[in-house]
Amino acid sequence: MLWNGWGDPDRATRLPDSVVGLLRELLGVRSVPLPPVSLEEMAPPAPRPAVRALAEIVGPEHVSTDDEARIRHTRGKSTADLLRMRAGDAREAPDAVVLPGAHAEVLAVLERCSRERIAVVPFGGGTSVVGGLTAEGEGFAGVVALDLRRLDRITALDTVSRTVTLQAGLRAPRAEALLAERGYTLGHYPQSYEWATIGGFAATRSSGQASAGYGRFDEMVAGLTVATPRGTLTLGRAPKSAAGPDLRQLVLGSEGAFGVITDVTARVRPLPEARRYEGWRFPTFAEGTAAVRALAQDGPLPTVLRLSDETETMIGLARPEEIGEGRGDGCLAICGYEGAREEVAGRRAGAHAVLRAHGGEPLGEGPGESWAAGRFSAPYLRDALLDVGAFAETLETAGFWSNLPRLLETVRLTLSRELPSSLVMCHISHVYPDGASLYFTVVSAQGDDPLARWRRAKAAVSDAIVEAGGTISHHHGVGTDHRDWLAREAGPLGTDVLRAVKDRLDPMGVLNPGVLVPSTRSGG
Amino acid sequence: MLWNGWGDPDRATRLPDSVVGLLRELLGVRSVPLPPVSLEEMAPPAPRPAVRALAEIVGPEHVSTDDEARIRHTRGKSTADLLRMRAGDAREAPDAVVLPGAHAEVLAVLERCSRERIAVVPFGGGTSVVGGLTAEGEGFAGVVALDLRRLDRITALDTVSRTVTLQAGLRAPRAEALLAERGYTLGHYPQSYEWATIGGFAATRSSGQASAGYGRFDEMVAGLTVATPRGTLTLGRAPKSAAGPDLRQLVLGSEGAFGVITDVTARVRPLPEARRYEGWRFPTFAEGTAAVRALAQDGPLPTVLRLSDETETMIGLARPEEIGEGRGDGCLAICGYEGAREEVAGRRAGAHAVLRAHGGEPLGEGPGESWAAGRFSAPYLRDALLDVGAFAETLETAGFWSNLPRLLETVRLTLSRELPSSLVMCHISHVYPDGASLYFTVVSAQGDDPLARWRRAKAAVSDAIVEAGGTISHHHGVGTDHRDWLAREAGPLGTDVLRAVKDRLDPMGVLNPGVLVPSTRSGG
Repeated sequence: MLWNGWGDPDRATRLPDSVVGLLRELLGVRSVPLPPVSLEEMAPPAPRPAVRALAEIVGPEHVSTDDEARIRHTRGKSTADLLRMRAGDAREAPDAVVLPGAHAEVLAVLERCSRERIAVVPFGGGTSVVGGLTAEGEGFAGVVALDLRRLDRITALDTVSRTVTLQAGLRAPRAEALLAERGYTLGHYPQSYEWATIGGFAATRSSGQASAGYGRFDEMVAGLTVATPRGTLTLGRAPKSAAGPDLRQLVLGSEGAFGVITDVTARVRPLPEARRYEGWRFPTFAEGTAAVRALAQDGPLPTVLRLSDETETMIGLARPEEIGEGRGDGCLAICGYEGAREEVAGRRAGAHAVLRAHGGEPLGEGPGESWAAGRFSAPYLRDALLDVGAFAETLETAGFWSNLPRLLETVRLTLSRELPSSLVMCHISHVYPDGASLYFTVVSAQGDDPLARWRRAKAAVSDAIVEAGGTISHHHGVGTDHRDWLAREAGPLGTDVLRAVKDRLDPMGVLNPGVLVPSTRSGG
Repeated sequence: MLWNGWGDPDRATRLPDSVVGLLRELLGVRSVPLPPVSLEEMAPPAPRPAVRALAEIVGPEHVSTDDEARIRHTRGKSTADLLRMRAGDAREAPDAVVLPGAHAEVLAVLERCSRERIAVVPFGGGTSVVGGLTAEGEGFAGVVALDLRRLDRITALDTVSRTVTLQAGLRAPRAEALLAERGYTLGHYPQSYEWATIGGFAATRSSGQASAGYGRFDEMVAGLTVATPRGTLTLGRAPKSAAGPDLRQLVLGSEGAFGVITDVTARVRPLPEARRYEGWRFPTFAEGTAAVRALAQDGPLPTVLRLSDETETMIGLARPEEIGEGRGDGCLAICGYEGAREEVAGRRAGAHAVLRAHGGEPLGEGPGESWAAGRFSAPYLRDALLDVGAFAETLETAGFWSNLPRLLETVRLTLSRELPSSLVMCHISHVYPDGASLYFTVVSAQGDDPLARWRRAKAAVSDAIVEAGGTISHHHGVGTDHRDWLAREAGPLGTDVLRAVKDRLDPMGVLNPGVLVPSTRSGG
């Protein structure tokens, strides 16, 4: 993973000159920014000595205090994170990177850190876009990134129950490869798929691009093992239960603030026998929305179901070489089907009837395959945009169907007001019988102080989302960026409940301080 | 509702003499018990004066301290509850029945009770079979039953999002009738359906007989309003969210120990256009289990899917007049389909193929309609059995498919050991891709001290369930009866988390003390 950008450096995207021209013309992108600071020039503060003791638990070879390891664990991958890295800001680097090799080691590290007032930031794929990896370390004797990459095995596959137990540090593509050898799949493909880990999926309530067919990650989880400073939680004896509140759903979305997930038991499905992705065009976003709502409420539901608004359809982010080449009017929907051959055929035929009845025009497999080919590429494009002085970021929400037009309107208006001369695109990518997500991409010129400008715009949009009754995140999570709005969403009493759980599991407040709920007990 | 038995007294079942004969012969049911104590003979302790102050909040006409009202709110409907009532034991009667008319009144009652150390037992349909209505009132200045029957309205129906907001005290049949007028249904039919309330469904994680098609109640809930001694929780801004842990799932299953649910926003569906219930016979329970697992994992899934073991099939509990009439060998499955006409036809054809492939033999609509006609009748039969000196009770668990044979075996063995000469029947009535529920009915002679005998047997079975890796309840809930086993299931740290939440929302411990988690702060 590129330390100050996204993904595999060899796959970096270069923008065609025509696109650079368009950015100049449309968005006023002018100044080419200073070249990013090099890795060698980065100068994180000296590591504090307190963290050295953790070598006693994991072995000295599994505690790293060198600059590169620390820089690579400094932040996540929001645009603000990348801009800070490009500017050479390594102030928030952890004092050490600790790599435990077993649940018992995680437990011992947490107990020790709790005693020694060392903050612990669990680190999976490092793909957070909400500040989930930037602990508020003030007052602590040190901050460590607890990188779970050594917990990378499948420990059980139950083919009767169709569940798999995966260690938290296992990366998604490796998990899929191991499962494929046995004929199974999780079917979980968020945009971060190529880098993200199983533990991260669970900790952040990840939602994959095929959520219509395979469900969200929180819906796939049958069991969890969680290490906390006060011991281990082992959750999940049955698919569903009436034995009190579902504590799995309290750990899912807890983002390392309550404990460190060390393994996850998740539902698997047989590898799909057939797979078909297609494009459809709708005259308007409203008509397309009615079509996807009909599929979500009355079925049959495709495995992948997305609908881009007019602007996103026109721009077509997936293939930079095609940007601006005119994809026609209207709104593009992608409908993908995966499963047993006959079942896919039946479901596809049923969906076609619904799509047509709502004014959809079939575009064939071309746009579907094109979308599938570029489904993990957008973050590369962002780096290319940053290189030429543009700014690109995404944000998302979800709400009930009846409230979706209001949410869409309020976010669009707020972004246009806060970031004049910007391009605002939206899509629906996750649907439920009672509502859907809205995902926004904004592209503008960087201007003089893009960080401050974005901070203001993002705060205004977050206010608008909460005031319009939406949730502050459908699948990006809370981190530090959304924390204050989660507090408004949950209300003072709901926030206090989260606080109560954290206080009980993490009495010294060392777990990912500042993430999810405000820190009340900095170590000092 | 009969005060010392089940349901509408006019619908009481009388056992045919042939069945009484069978009970004598098979189970050694001999002594006819003493006739139940009459309502007039019941003598609850005098109400304590502290509860009178609540009239200031709800009005004097909505606080009842007369004996009959208090007796009717004394216990739930477990067999142990009924035996105690029949024996004239009214020691646990609440001091008053309080009927709030609005969320604000519930809130005010809880604040006052918290201040005055009055225990509060939320009361919906009064159908708990796990001691969920029997507060440990020792040390408190009083105990009140907070009957929510006045909160009985639908306050919003969102036909675009297909959600309805129902007040907690609304009874299920009335909710369905109101929804049917608008063309919708919840589709939630637990055995307690005729008496149970919306708030009770949510508080206990109820699961209906059509859960395969409509989902469990906890899966239908989109939002909740909860009154607590420390204020109001308002939860649910979107179908799904990544804004932290899902606090709805912390309230669902909290059984009045964290707060009082005052309204629920739930998903609705259009009234089904077509409905067809059918019977199938499988040679063995194992083969039938393989068939229902195939439907749960690969579809198509009927709306109702149940499988009785050999004993339950032979006995046929639904129709007392047919008991012992020989329903043939093997295991009876009930497969019901509800939905749009064409969709039902397609799903039914697909399910038929799967059922046949697994050795199922179609029995037509007769057994399906017979089951549907008697679906809410079993509790009436229990009263008839008690009348003639038999003892009948149910218990249930759930687990992953691979663990189901072990769970089944261990419960059967334990019941046979603890209750020799008893009839033990089992069915699967709720299926998931990764597992299923197991529901047991046991019938035996009452003997000299049926309460003590059942207490021992139930404890042994609960131990066995937890040791075999199952959950202590799939849909009956925790109450006081399962509390100690929930503590083992959740582990000390999981129990401590529940405790932390309760302490934060109910610092004086007045909410349903003794239910869900052990009381630590009795008022004294």
